[in-house]
Amino acid sequence: MTPSRHFGAVRGVEVGHHFPDRKAASKAGVHRPTQPGISGSATEGCDSICVSGGYVDDLDRGDVLVYTGQGGRDPNTGKQVADQSWGDAKNAALVVSELEGLPIRVLRGSKGDPAHSPATGYRYDGLYRVSRHWAERGRHGYMVCRYELRRISADPVPVDALSGSGEQPGAEVGTPAPRVTTTIQRIARSTAVGNYVKRLHRHTCQVCGEVIGTPGGPYAEGAHIRPLGFPHNGPDVVENVLCLCPNDHVRFDTGAIWLDDDLVVVDAATGQRTTSLRKVKGHSLRPDCVEYHRGMWQES
Amino acid sequence: MTPSRHFGAVRGVEVGHHFPDRKAASKAGVHRPTQPGISGSATEGCDSICVSGGYVDDLDRGDVLVYTGQGGRDPNTGKQVADQSWGDAKNAALVVSELEGLPIRVLRGSKGDPAHSPATGYRYDGLYRVSRHWAERGRHGYMVCRYELRRISADPVPVDALSGSGEQPGAEVGTPAPRVTTTIQRIARSTAVGNYVKRLHRHTCQVCGEVIGTPGGPYAEGAHIRPLGFPHNGPDVVENVLCLCPNDHVRFDTGAIWLDDDLVVVDAATGQRTTSLRKVKGHSLRPDCVEYHRGMWQES
Repeated sequence: MTPSRHFGAVRGVEVGHHFPDRKAASKAGVHRPTQPGISGSATEGCDSICVSGGYVDDLDRGDVLVYTGQGGRDPNTGKQVADQSWGDAKNAALVVSELEGLPIRVLRGSKGDPAHSPATGYRYDGLYRVSRHWAERGRHGYMVCRYELRRISADPVPVDALSGSGEQPGAEVGTPAPRVTTTIQRIARSTAVGNYVKRLHRHTCQVCGEVIGTPGGPYAEGAHIRPLGFPHNGPDVVENVLCLCPNDHVRFDTGAIWLDDDLVVVDAATGQRTTSLRKVKGHSLRPDCVEYHRGMWQES
Repeated sequence: MTPSRHFGAVRGVEVGHHFPDRKAASKAGVHRPTQPGISGSATEGCDSICVSGGYVDDLDRGDVLVYTGQGGRDPNTGKQVADQSWGDAKNAALVVSELEGLPIRVLRGSKGDPAHSPATGYRYDGLYRVSRHWAERGRHGYMVCRYELRRISADPVPVDALSGSGEQPGAEVGTPAPRVTTTIQRIARSTAVGNYVKRLHRHTCQVCGEVIGTPGGPYAEGAHIRPLGFPHNGPDVVENVLCLCPNDHVRFDTGAIWLDDDLVVVDAATGQRTTSLRKVKGHSLRPDCVEYHRGMWQES
Protein backbone atom coordinates (compact mmCIF):
# COMPACT_ATOMS: atom_id res chain seq x y z
CA MET A 1 0.00 0.00 0.00
CA THR A 2 1.28 3.45 -0.92
CA PRO A 3 1.58 5.75 2.09
CA SER A 4 -0.67 8.82 1.73
CA ARG A 5 0.95 11.79 0.06
CA HIS A 6 2.44 14.31 2.49
CA PHE A 7 2.57 18.01 1.60
CA GLY A 8 4.95 20.42 3.26
CA ALA A 9 8.04 19.97 5.42
CA VAL A 10 9.07 16.53 6.60
CA ARG A 11 9.51 16.35 10.36
CA GLY A 12 13.15 15.97 11.29
CA VAL A 13 14.55 17.05 7.92
CA GLU A 14 16.00 20.55 8.09
CA VAL A 15 16.44 22.88 5.14
CA GLY A 16 19.97 22.29 3.86
CA HIS A 17 20.02 18.60 4.75
CA HIS A 18 22.24 16.58 2.41
CA PHE A 19 21.57 13.15 0.95
CA PRO A 20 24.23 11.04 -0.78
CA ASP A 21 21.75 9.84 -3.43
CA ARG A 22 18.12 9.84 -4.58
CA LYS A 23 17.44 6.62 -2.67
CA ALA A 24 18.32 8.28 0.65
CA ALA A 25 16.13 11.31 -0.15
CA SER A 26 13.31 8.93 -1.03
CA LYS A 27 13.67 6.96 2.20
CA ALA A 28 13.56 10.21 4.21
CA GLY A 29 10.25 11.12 2.54
CA VAL A 30 11.63 14.29 0.92
CA HIS A 31 11.21 13.12 -2.69
CA ARG A 32 9.72 9.65 -2.95
CA PRO A 33 10.38 8.64 -6.58
CA THR A 34 13.98 7.61 -7.24
CA GLN A 35 13.92 8.42 -10.98
CA PRO A 36 11.19 10.94 -11.98
CA GLY A 37 11.69 14.62 -11.23
CA ILE A 38 8.06 15.21 -10.25
CA SER A 39 6.27 13.47 -7.38
CA GLY A 40 2.48 13.80 -7.44
CA SER A 41 -0.81 12.96 -9.10
CA ALA A 42 -3.36 14.86 -11.14
CA THR A 43 -5.95 14.56 -8.35
CA GLU A 44 -3.80 15.35 -5.29
CA GLY A 45 -1.23 17.74 -6.77
CA CYS A 46 2.56 17.67 -6.59
CA ASP A 47 4.31 17.27 -3.23
CA SER A 48 7.95 17.46 -4.34
CA ILE A 49 10.29 17.94 -7.30
CA CYS A 50 13.94 17.20 -7.91
CA VAL A 51 16.00 19.85 -9.72
CA SER A 52 19.03 18.20 -11.19
CA GLY A 53 19.84 19.89 -14.45
CA GLY A 54 18.20 17.24 -16.60
CA TYR A 55 16.37 19.71 -18.81
CA VAL A 56 18.27 22.19 -20.92
CA ASP A 57 15.50 24.74 -20.45
CA ASP A 58 15.52 24.79 -16.64
CA LEU A 59 16.54 28.07 -15.01
CA ASP A 60 17.58 28.49 -11.39
CA ARG A 61 17.85 31.79 -9.57
CA GLY A 62 17.76 30.27 -6.11
CA ASP A 63 14.53 31.70 -4.73
CA VAL A 64 12.86 31.49 -8.14
CA LEU A 65 13.02 28.41 -10.34
CA VAL A 66 11.76 27.81 -13.84
CA TYR A 67 11.07 24.12 -14.11
CA THR A 68 10.17 21.99 -17.12
CA GLY A 69 7.48 19.31 -17.18
CA GLN A 70 8.09 15.71 -18.17
CA GLY A 71 7.61 13.73 -21.37
CA GLY A 72 8.71 13.86 -24.98
CA ARG A 73 12.29 12.82 -24.33
CA ASP A 74 14.11 9.90 -25.91
CA PRO A 75 14.75 7.45 -23.05
CA ASN A 76 18.15 6.54 -24.45
CA THR A 77 19.61 9.92 -25.39
CA GLY A 78 17.56 12.13 -23.02
CA LYS A 79 16.96 14.49 -25.94
CA GLN A 80 13.59 16.18 -26.51
CA VAL A 81 12.02 14.45 -29.51
CA ALA A 82 8.33 15.33 -29.10
CA ASP A 83 5.97 17.87 -27.50
CA GLN A 84 5.06 17.63 -23.82
CA SER A 85 1.42 17.55 -22.74
CA TRP A 86 -0.62 19.16 -19.94
CA GLY A 87 -2.58 15.89 -19.90
CA ASP A 88 0.43 14.05 -18.47
CA ALA A 89 -0.40 13.20 -14.83
CA LYS A 90 2.82 14.69 -13.41
CA ASN A 91 2.56 17.87 -15.48
CA ALA A 92 -1.08 18.25 -14.39
CA ALA A 93 -0.04 17.69 -10.74
CA LEU A 94 2.07 20.86 -10.78
CA VAL A 95 -0.88 22.88 -12.14
CA VAL A 96 -3.15 21.53 -9.39
CA SER A 97 -0.54 22.59 -6.84
CA GLU A 98 -0.62 26.10 -8.28
CA LEU A 99 -4.42 26.32 -8.18
CA GLU A 100 -4.57 24.94 -4.62
CA GLY A 101 -1.53 26.86 -3.37
CA LEU A 102 0.17 23.67 -2.14
CA PRO A 103 3.74 23.74 -0.81
CA ILE A 104 6.29 21.74 -2.84
CA ARG A 105 9.50 20.33 -1.38
CA VAL A 106 12.50 21.05 -3.61
CA LEU A 107 15.46 18.67 -3.76
CA ARG A 108 18.48 20.01 -5.64
CA GLY A 109 21.10 17.74 -7.18
CA SER A 110 24.77 18.49 -7.81
CA LYS A 111 24.30 18.56 -11.59
CA GLY A 112 22.06 21.64 -11.52
CA ASP A 113 23.07 25.29 -11.81
CA PRO A 114 26.40 25.53 -9.96
CA ALA A 115 25.37 28.75 -8.20
CA HIS A 116 22.53 27.09 -6.27
CA SER A 117 23.28 23.38 -6.29
CA PRO A 118 24.99 21.22 -3.70
CA ALA A 119 28.61 20.30 -4.29
CA THR A 120 27.80 16.59 -4.18
CA GLY A 121 24.71 14.41 -3.97
CA TYR A 122 21.37 16.03 -3.20
CA ARG A 123 20.16 18.73 -0.82
CA TYR A 124 16.70 19.56 0.57
CA ASP A 125 16.21 23.26 -0.13
CA GLY A 126 12.86 23.97 1.53
CA LEU A 127 9.37 24.74 0.28
CA TYR A 128 8.34 26.45 -2.93
CA ARG A 129 5.03 27.01 -4.62
CA VAL A 130 4.08 27.20 -8.28
CA SER A 131 3.26 30.81 -9.06
CA ARG A 132 2.60 30.39 -12.77
CA HIS A 133 2.63 27.86 -15.61
CA TRP A 134 2.75 28.22 -19.37
CA ALA A 135 3.66 26.45 -22.58
CA GLU A 136 6.90 27.28 -24.38
CA ARG A 137 8.80 26.15 -27.41
CA GLY A 138 12.13 24.94 -26.04
CA ARG A 139 15.57 25.39 -27.59
CA HIS A 140 15.07 22.01 -29.31
CA GLY A 141 11.95 23.24 -31.11
CA TYR A 142 9.41 21.15 -29.16
CA MET A 143 6.67 22.46 -26.89
CA VAL A 144 7.37 22.02 -23.19
CA CYS A 145 5.32 22.65 -20.05
CA ARG A 146 6.93 25.33 -17.92
CA TYR A 147 6.46 26.30 -14.28
CA GLU A 148 7.67 29.23 -12.24
CA LEU A 149 8.25 28.23 -8.61
CA ARG A 150 8.86 30.70 -5.81
CA ARG A 151 10.32 29.98 -2.43
CA ILE A 152 7.85 30.14 0.46
CA SER A 153 10.33 30.09 3.34
CA ALA A 154 11.79 33.47 4.25
CA ASP A 155 15.23 32.04 4.99
CA PRO A 156 17.71 32.12 2.09
CA VAL A 157 18.49 29.16 -0.13
CA PRO A 158 21.32 27.14 1.42
CA VAL A 159 24.79 27.73 0.03
CA ASP A 160 27.34 24.98 0.25
CA ALA A 161 30.86 25.76 1.39
CA LEU A 162 33.22 25.85 -1.59
CA SER A 163 34.23 22.23 -1.93
CA GLY A 164 37.72 22.70 -3.30
CA SER A 165 38.98 21.00 -0.17
CA GLY A 166 36.84 17.99 -0.96
CA GLU A 167 35.23 18.45 2.45
CA GLN A 168 31.76 16.99 2.85
CA PRO A 169 29.28 19.86 3.31
CA GLY A 170 27.76 19.63 6.76
CA ALA A 171 24.16 18.69 7.36
CA GLU A 172 24.04 21.64 9.78
CA VAL A 173 23.77 24.08 6.86
CA GLY A 174 20.55 26.08 6.89
CA THR A 175 17.83 26.60 9.46
CA PRO A 176 15.09 24.33 10.81
CA ALA A 177 12.23 23.69 8.40
CA PRO A 178 9.11 25.45 9.61
CA ARG A 179 5.89 23.45 9.77
CA VAL A 180 4.13 25.33 7.01
CA THR A 181 0.40 25.02 7.37
CA THR A 182 -0.58 28.23 5.61
CA THR A 183 0.77 28.97 2.16
CA ILE A 184 0.22 32.00 0.04
CA GLN A 185 -1.89 31.08 -2.93
CA ARG A 186 -2.52 34.11 -5.05
CA ILE A 187 -0.96 37.54 -4.84
CA ALA A 188 -2.46 40.48 -6.68
CA ARG A 189 0.35 43.01 -6.87
CA SER A 190 -0.32 46.69 -7.01
CA THR A 191 1.90 49.10 -8.90
CA ALA A 192 1.63 52.80 -9.58
CA VAL A 193 1.07 51.95 -13.24
CA GLY A 194 -1.68 49.47 -12.35
CA ASN A 195 -3.43 52.02 -10.17
CA TYR A 196 -3.28 54.54 -13.02
CA VAL A 197 -4.92 52.07 -15.41
CA LYS A 198 -7.61 51.18 -12.85
CA ARG A 199 -8.53 54.83 -12.41
CA LEU A 200 -8.56 55.36 -16.18
CA HIS A 201 -11.16 52.58 -16.45
CA ARG A 202 -13.00 53.68 -13.31
CA HIS A 203 -12.32 50.21 -11.92
CA THR A 204 -14.49 48.60 -14.62
CA CYS A 205 -13.34 45.13 -15.71
CA GLN A 206 -12.24 45.29 -19.35
CA VAL A 207 -13.53 41.76 -19.94
CA CYS A 208 -16.92 41.50 -18.18
CA GLY A 209 -17.69 45.17 -17.50
CA GLU A 210 -18.28 44.53 -13.81
CA VAL A 211 -17.24 46.93 -11.03
CA ILE A 212 -16.69 45.27 -7.65
CA GLY A 213 -18.31 47.74 -5.29
CA THR A 214 -17.14 47.84 -1.68
CA PRO A 215 -18.15 50.23 1.10
CA GLY A 216 -14.71 51.85 0.79
CA GLY A 217 -14.93 52.36 -2.98
CA PRO A 218 -14.64 50.29 -6.16
CA TYR A 219 -12.12 47.46 -6.39
CA ALA A 220 -10.26 46.18 -9.46
CA GLU A 221 -6.85 44.70 -10.20
CA GLY A 222 -4.15 45.86 -12.57
CA ALA A 223 -3.26 42.75 -14.56
CA HIS A 224 0.06 42.65 -16.37
CA ILE A 225 -0.31 41.11 -19.84
CA ARG A 226 3.31 40.00 -20.18
CA PRO A 227 4.13 39.07 -16.56
CA LEU A 228 6.50 41.22 -14.51
CA GLY A 229 9.82 39.92 -13.26
CA PHE A 230 11.94 36.87 -13.91
CA PRO A 231 11.63 34.94 -16.20
CA HIS A 232 9.12 36.88 -18.34
CA ASN A 233 10.38 40.40 -17.58
CA GLY A 234 7.31 42.21 -18.88
CA PRO A 235 7.43 46.00 -18.64
CA ASP A 236 5.54 47.85 -15.88
CA VAL A 237 3.96 50.29 -18.32
CA VAL A 238 0.37 51.34 -18.95
CA GLU A 239 0.42 49.59 -22.34
CA ASN A 240 1.10 46.24 -20.63
CA VAL A 241 -1.67 46.44 -18.01
CA LEU A 242 -5.36 45.59 -18.10
CA CYS A 243 -8.01 46.62 -15.58
CA LEU A 244 -9.72 43.37 -14.54
CA CYS A 245 -12.02 42.03 -11.83
CA PRO A 246 -10.34 39.35 -9.69
CA ASN A 247 -12.26 36.55 -11.44
CA ASP A 248 -11.13 37.58 -14.90
CA HIS A 249 -7.63 38.22 -13.57
CA VAL A 250 -7.45 34.57 -12.51
CA ARG A 251 -8.81 33.49 -15.90
CA PHE A 252 -6.28 35.66 -17.73
CA ASP A 253 -3.31 34.52 -15.64
CA THR A 254 -4.15 30.83 -15.99
CA GLY A 255 -4.76 30.92 -19.74
CA ALA A 256 -8.53 30.38 -19.53
CA ILE A 257 -8.84 33.48 -21.70
CA TRP A 258 -6.48 35.32 -23.99
CA LEU A 259 -6.61 38.14 -26.53
CA ASP A 260 -6.36 37.89 -30.29
CA ASP A 261 -4.71 40.58 -32.41
CA ASP A 262 -8.00 42.49 -32.63
CA LEU A 263 -8.21 42.52 -28.81
CA VAL A 264 -11.16 40.15 -28.79
CA VAL A 265 -11.30 37.86 -25.74
CA VAL A 266 -10.89 34.20 -26.73
CA ASP A 267 -12.23 31.43 -24.48
CA ALA A 268 -9.51 28.76 -24.31
CA ALA A 269 -11.95 25.94 -23.55
CA THR A 270 -13.97 26.45 -26.74
CA GLY A 271 -11.57 28.47 -28.87
CA GLN A 272 -14.44 30.89 -29.47
CA ARG A 273 -14.02 34.65 -29.72
CA THR A 274 -16.37 35.99 -27.07
CA THR A 275 -16.37 39.72 -26.35
CA SER A 276 -14.26 42.70 -27.36
CA LEU A 277 -11.99 44.12 -24.70
CA ARG A 278 -13.48 47.35 -23.32
CA LYS A 279 -11.34 50.32 -24.21
CA VAL A 280 -11.01 53.87 -22.95
CA LYS A 281 -9.30 56.82 -24.59
CA GLY A 282 -5.63 57.09 -23.73
CA HIS A 283 -5.09 53.41 -23.06
CA SER A 284 -3.55 51.51 -25.94
CA LEU A 285 -1.93 48.09 -25.54
CA ARG A 286 1.41 46.86 -26.82
CA PRO A 287 0.81 44.18 -29.47
CA ASP A 288 4.07 42.40 -28.56
CA CYS A 289 2.88 41.98 -24.96
CA VAL A 290 -0.50 40.66 -26.10
CA GLU A 291 1.28 38.21 -28.40
CA TYR A 292 3.66 37.14 -25.61
CA HIS A 293 0.76 36.32 -23.29
CA ARG A 294 -1.05 34.39 -26.01
CA GLY A 295 2.16 32.49 -26.74
CA MET A 296 2.26 31.32 -23.11
CA TRP A 297 -0.88 29.26 -23.67
CA GLN A 298 -1.06 28.17 -27.27
CA GLU A 299 0.60 24.80 -27.59
CA SER A 300 0.98 24.87 -31.34
CA MET B 1 0.38 75.38 -3.31
CA THR B 2 0.47 71.99 -1.63
CA PRO B 3 3.24 69.74 -2.96
CA SER B 4 1.84 66.58 -4.57
CA ARG B 5 1.41 63.64 -2.25
CA HIS B 6 4.33 61.20 -2.29
CA PHE B 7 3.76 57.51 -1.64
CA GLY B 8 6.51 55.19 -0.49
CA ALA B 9 9.99 55.75 0.88
CA VAL B 10 11.45 59.25 1.04
CA ARG B 11 14.82 59.49 -0.65
CA GLY B 12 17.59 59.98 1.87
CA VAL B 13 15.58 58.89 4.91
CA GLU B 14 16.59 55.44 6.07
CA VAL B 15 14.45 53.08 8.09
CA GLY B 16 15.30 53.74 11.75
CA HIS B 17 15.97 57.44 11.23
CA HIS B 18 15.18 59.51 14.35
CA PHE B 19 13.49 62.89 14.54
CA PRO B 20 13.42 65.04 17.67
CA ASP B 21 9.83 66.14 17.05
CA ARG B 22 6.88 66.03 14.62
CA LYS B 23 8.02 69.26 12.98
CA ALA B 24 11.32 67.67 11.93
CA ALA B 25 9.53 64.57 10.58
CA SER B 26 7.19 66.86 8.66
CA LYS B 27 10.04 68.87 7.17
CA ALA B 28 11.74 65.65 6.03
CA GLY B 29 8.56 64.63 4.19
CA VAL B 30 8.05 61.48 6.26
CA HIS B 31 4.78 62.58 7.87
CA ARG B 32 3.63 66.01 6.69
CA PRO B 33 0.94 66.98 9.23
CA THR B 34 2.33 68.08 12.59
CA GLN B 35 -0.78 67.23 14.62
CA PRO B 36 -3.06 64.64 12.91
CA GLY B 37 -2.07 60.96 12.98
CA ILE B 38 -3.22 60.29 9.42
CA SER B 39 -1.85 62.01 6.32
CA GLY B 40 -3.95 61.58 3.19
CA SER B 41 -7.16 62.30 1.34
CA ALA B 42 -10.22 60.30 0.35
CA THR B 43 -9.32 60.58 -3.33
CA GLU B 44 -5.57 59.89 -3.22
CA GLY B 45 -5.33 57.56 -0.22
CA CYS B 46 -3.10 57.73 2.85
CA ASP B 47 0.66 58.23 2.47
CA SER B 48 1.74 58.11 6.13
CA ILE B 49 0.55 57.66 9.70
CA CYS B 50 2.01 58.49 13.09
CA VAL B 51 1.70 55.87 15.82
CA SER B 52 2.09 57.58 19.15
CA GLY B 53 -0.16 55.85 21.64
CA GLY B 54 -2.92 58.43 21.41
CA TYR B 55 -5.70 55.86 21.11
CA VAL B 56 -6.33 53.41 23.92
CA ASP B 57 -7.41 50.79 21.36
CA ASP B 58 -4.22 50.80 19.30
CA LEU B 59 -2.21 47.58 19.29
CA ASP B 60 1.40 47.25 18.20
CA ARG B 61 3.17 43.99 17.48
CA GLY B 62 5.96 45.58 15.49
CA ASP B 63 5.38 44.06 12.06
CA VAL B 64 1.61 44.18 12.53
CA LEU B 65 -0.24 47.22 13.80
CA VAL B 66 -3.87 47.74 14.66
CA TYR B 67 -4.57 51.41 14.17
CA THR B 68 -7.62 53.48 15.04
CA GLY B 69 -9.24 56.08 12.80
CA GLN B 70 -9.81 59.68 13.78
CA GLY B 71 -12.79 61.61 15.11
CA GLY B 72 -15.21 61.45 18.02
CA ARG B 73 -12.73 62.63 20.64
CA ASP B 74 -13.11 65.56 23.00
CA PRO B 75 -10.43 68.06 21.92
CA ASN B 76 -9.72 69.02 25.53
CA THR B 77 -9.61 65.68 27.31
CA GLY B 78 -8.75 63.46 24.32
CA LYS B 79 -11.44 61.04 25.45
CA GLN B 80 -13.73 59.25 22.99
CA VAL B 81 -17.15 60.88 23.31
CA ALA B 82 -18.81 59.92 19.99
CA ASP B 83 -18.70 57.33 17.19
CA GLN B 84 -16.13 57.60 14.40
CA SER B 85 -17.22 57.58 10.76
CA TRP B 86 -15.98 55.97 7.53
CA GLY B 87 -17.11 59.18 5.83
CA ASP B 88 -14.29 61.12 7.52
CA ALA B 89 -11.72 62.00 4.82
CA LYS B 90 -8.73 60.61 6.76
CA ASN B 91 -10.51 57.40 7.72
CA ALA B 92 -11.59 56.96 4.10
CA ALA B 93 -8.00 57.59 2.96
CA LEU B 94 -6.78 54.47 4.78
CA VAL B 95 -9.48 52.37 3.10
CA VAL B 96 -8.47 53.70 -0.33
CA SER B 97 -4.87 52.74 0.46
CA GLU B 98 -6.04 49.20 1.24
CA LEU B 99 -8.04 48.90 -1.99
CA GLU B 100 -5.19 50.32 -4.07
CA GLY B 101 -2.42 48.50 -2.20
CA LEU B 102 -0.54 51.73 -1.50
CA PRO B 103 2.53 51.77 0.75
CA ILE B 104 2.19 53.82 3.96
CA ARG B 105 5.11 55.35 5.84
CA VAL B 106 4.93 54.67 9.57
CA LEU B 107 6.35 57.13 12.09
CA ARG B 108 6.47 55.83 15.67
CA GLY B 109 6.55 58.17 18.68
CA SER B 110 8.05 57.49 22.10
CA LYS B 111 4.64 57.35 23.80
CA GLY B 112 3.56 54.23 21.93
CA ASP B 113 3.96 50.60 22.98
CA PRO B 114 7.36 50.47 24.75
CA ALA B 115 8.33 47.25 22.99
CA HIS B 116 8.34 48.86 19.54
CA SER B 117 8.64 52.60 20.11
CA PRO B 118 11.69 54.85 20.08
CA ALA B 119 13.14 55.86 23.43
CA THR B 120 12.69 59.55 22.63
CA GLY B 121 11.12 61.63 19.89
CA TYR B 122 10.00 59.94 16.67
CA ARG B 123 11.39 57.24 14.40
CA TYR B 124 10.68 56.33 10.76
CA ASP B 125 9.93 52.60 10.81
CA GLY B 126 9.47 51.84 7.12
CA LEU B 127 6.55 50.95 4.89
CA TYR B 128 3.36 49.16 5.81
CA ARG B 129 0.16 48.47 3.95
CA VAL B 130 -3.43 48.23 5.19
CA SER B 131 -4.43 44.57 4.98
CA ARG B 132 -7.91 44.93 6.44
CA HIS B 133 -10.33 47.40 7.99
CA TRP B 134 -13.41 47.00 10.15
CA ALA B 135 -15.64 48.76 12.67
CA GLU B 136 -15.32 47.98 16.36
CA ARG B 137 -16.83 49.15 19.62
CA GLY B 138 -13.90 50.45 21.65
CA ARG B 139 -13.31 50.06 25.37
CA HIS B 140 -15.11 53.39 25.84
CA GLY B 141 -18.31 52.08 24.24
CA TYR B 142 -18.11 54.12 21.01
CA MET B 143 -17.67 52.77 17.50
CA VAL B 144 -14.23 53.27 16.04
CA CYS B 145 -12.71 52.63 12.60
CA ARG B 146 -9.98 50.03 12.82
CA TYR B 147 -7.16 49.10 10.43
CA GLU B 148 -4.72 46.24 10.37
CA LEU B 149 -1.38 47.29 8.85
CA ARG B 150 1.35 44.87 7.88
CA ARG B 151 4.96 45.70 7.25
CA ILE B 152 6.02 45.50 3.59
CA SER B 153 9.79 45.66 4.09
CA ALA B 154 11.45 42.35 4.88
CA ASP B 155 13.91 43.91 7.33
CA PRO B 156 12.84 43.84 10.99
CA VAL B 157 11.32 46.78 12.82
CA PRO B 158 14.12 48.92 14.31
CA VAL B 159 14.87 48.40 17.97
CA ASP B 160 16.36 51.24 19.96
CA ALA B 161 19.20 50.57 22.34
CA LEU B 162 17.92 50.53 25.92
CA SER B 163 18.01 54.14 26.90
CA GLY B 164 18.70 53.73 30.62
CA SER B 165 21.97 55.51 30.00
CA GLY B 166 20.09 58.42 28.55
CA GLU B 167 22.15 57.99 25.41
CA GLN B 168 20.64 59.37 22.20
CA PRO B 169 19.83 56.43 19.92
CA GLY B 170 21.88 56.65 16.78
CA ALA B 171 20.41 57.47 13.39
CA GLU B 172 22.50 54.57 12.05
CA VAL B 173 19.99 52.08 13.41
CA GLY B 174 18.23 50.10 10.71
CA THR B 175 18.88 49.49 7.05
CA PRO B 176 18.44 51.61 3.93
CA ALA B 177 14.86 52.16 2.84
CA PRO B 178 14.24 50.35 -0.43
CA ARG B 179 12.54 52.27 -3.24
CA VAL B 180 9.34 50.28 -3.16
CA THR B 181 7.56 50.51 -6.47
CA THR B 182 5.63 47.26 -6.30
CA THR B 183 3.54 46.46 -3.25
CA ILE B 184 1.50 43.40 -2.51
CA GLN B 185 -2.15 44.28 -2.64
CA ARG B 186 -4.21 41.24 -1.94
CA ILE B 187 -3.15 37.83 -0.78
CA ALA B 188 -5.47 34.85 -0.99
CA ARG B 189 -4.02 32.36 1.47
CA SER B 190 -4.43 28.67 1.00
CA THR B 191 -4.71 26.29 3.93
CA ALA B 192 -5.34 22.56 4.10
CA VAL B 193 -8.71 23.36 5.66
CA GLY B 194 -9.54 25.80 2.86
CA ASN B 195 -8.62 23.24 0.21
CA TYR B 196 -10.86 20.68 1.93
CA VAL B 197 -13.82 23.08 1.85
CA LYS B 198 -13.17 23.94 -1.80
CA ARG B 199 -13.24 20.27 -2.78
CA LEU B 200 -16.39 19.71 -0.73
CA HIS B 201 -18.10 22.42 -2.79
CA ARG B 202 -16.47 21.30 -6.05
CA HIS B 203 -15.02 24.82 -6.27
CA THR B 204 -18.49 26.36 -6.62
CA CYS B 205 -18.85 29.83 -5.10
CA GLN B 206 -21.27 29.67 -2.18
CA VAL B 207 -22.56 33.16 -2.98
CA CYS B 208 -22.95 33.34 -6.77
CA GLY B 209 -22.73 29.66 -7.75
CA GLU B 210 -19.98 30.32 -10.28
CA VAL B 211 -17.04 27.99 -10.90
CA ILE B 212 -13.96 29.70 -12.32
CA GLY B 213 -12.82 27.25 -14.96
CA THR B 214 -9.16 27.20 -15.97
CA PRO B 215 -7.35 24.83 -18.32
CA GLY B 216 -5.68 23.27 -15.24
CA GLY B 217 -8.93 22.72 -13.35
CA PRO B 218 -11.47 24.75 -11.37
CA TYR B 219 -10.35 27.64 -9.18
CA ALA B 220 -11.91 28.92 -5.94
CA GLU B 221 -10.68 30.47 -2.72
CA GLY B 222 -11.16 29.33 0.86
CA ALA B 223 -12.40 32.46 2.67
CA HIS B 224 -12.07 32.61 6.43
CA ILE B 225 -15.20 34.09 8.00
CA ARG B 226 -13.52 35.28 11.19
CA PRO B 227 -10.07 36.28 9.89
CA LEU B 228 -7.01 34.21 10.77
CA GLY B 229 -4.18 35.59 12.86
CA PHE B 230 -3.64 38.68 14.96
CA PRO B 231 -5.76 40.58 15.94
CA HIS B 232 -8.87 38.56 15.02
CA ASN B 233 -7.46 35.08 15.69
CA GLY B 234 -10.19 33.19 13.87
CA PRO B 235 -9.84 29.39 13.87
CA ASP B 236 -8.53 27.54 10.80
CA VAL B 237 -11.39 25.03 10.86
CA VAL B 238 -13.86 23.89 8.21
CA GLU B 239 -16.72 25.61 10.10
CA ASN B 240 -14.97 28.99 9.67
CA VAL B 241 -14.31 28.76 5.93
CA LEU B 242 -16.44 29.52 2.87
CA CYS B 243 -15.78 28.46 -0.71
CA LEU B 244 -15.92 31.69 -2.74
CA CYS B 245 -14.96 33.00 -6.17
CA PRO B 246 -12.30 35.75 -5.98
CA ASN B 247 -14.89 38.49 -6.65
CA ASP B 248 -17.14 37.44 -3.77
CA HIS B 249 -14.06 36.89 -1.59
CA VAL B 250 -13.15 40.55 -2.07
CA ARG B 251 -16.76 41.56 -1.35
CA PHE B 252 -16.86 39.42 1.80
CA ASP B 253 -13.51 40.66 3.13
CA THR B 254 -14.34 44.33 2.56
CA GLY B 255 -17.80 44.19 4.12
CA ALA B 256 -19.70 44.64 0.84
CA ILE B 257 -21.63 41.50 1.80
CA TRP B 258 -22.20 39.71 5.08
CA LEU B 259 -24.31 36.85 6.40
CA ASP B 260 -27.32 37.06 8.68
CA ASP B 261 -28.13 34.37 11.25
CA ASP B 262 -30.09 32.39 8.65
CA LEU B 263 -27.01 32.41 6.37
CA VAL B 264 -28.65 34.70 3.86
CA VAL B 265 -26.25 37.04 2.03
CA VAL B 266 -26.93 40.69 2.88
CA ASP B 267 -25.85 43.46 0.48
CA ALA B 268 -24.27 46.18 2.64
CA ALA B 269 -25.05 48.96 0.13
CA THR B 270 -28.81 48.38 0.22
CA GLY B 271 -29.22 46.39 3.44
CA GLN B 272 -31.24 43.89 1.38
CA ARG B 273 -31.14 40.14 1.92
CA THR B 274 -30.20 38.78 -1.48
CA THR B 275 -29.52 35.05 -1.83
CA SER B 276 -29.14 32.11 0.53
CA LEU B 277 -25.63 30.77 0.97
CA ARG B 278 -25.22 27.54 -1.01
CA LYS B 279 -24.71 24.59 1.31
CA VAL B 280 -23.42 21.06 0.93
CA LYS B 281 -23.79 18.13 3.30
CA GLY B 282 -21.04 17.93 5.91
CA HIS B 283 -20.25 21.65 5.93
CA SER B 284 -21.85 23.54 8.79
CA LEU B 285 -20.69 27.00 9.86
CA ARG B 286 -19.95 28.31 13.34
CA PRO B 287 -22.56 30.94 14.27
CA ASP B 288 -20.05 32.79 16.48
CA CYS B 289 -17.71 33.24 13.49
CA VAL B 290 -20.55 34.47 11.28
CA GLU B 291 -21.55 36.92 14.01
CA TYR B 292 -17.94 38.08 14.45
CA HIS B 293 -17.61 38.86 10.74
CA ARG B 294 -20.91 40.72 10.70
CA GLY B 295 -19.80 42.69 13.77
CA MET B 296 -16.75 43.90 11.83
CA TRP B 297 -18.97 45.89 9.50
CA GLN B 298 -22.13 46.95 11.29
CA GLU B 299 -21.53 50.34 12.78
CA SER B 300 -24.48 50.24 15.15
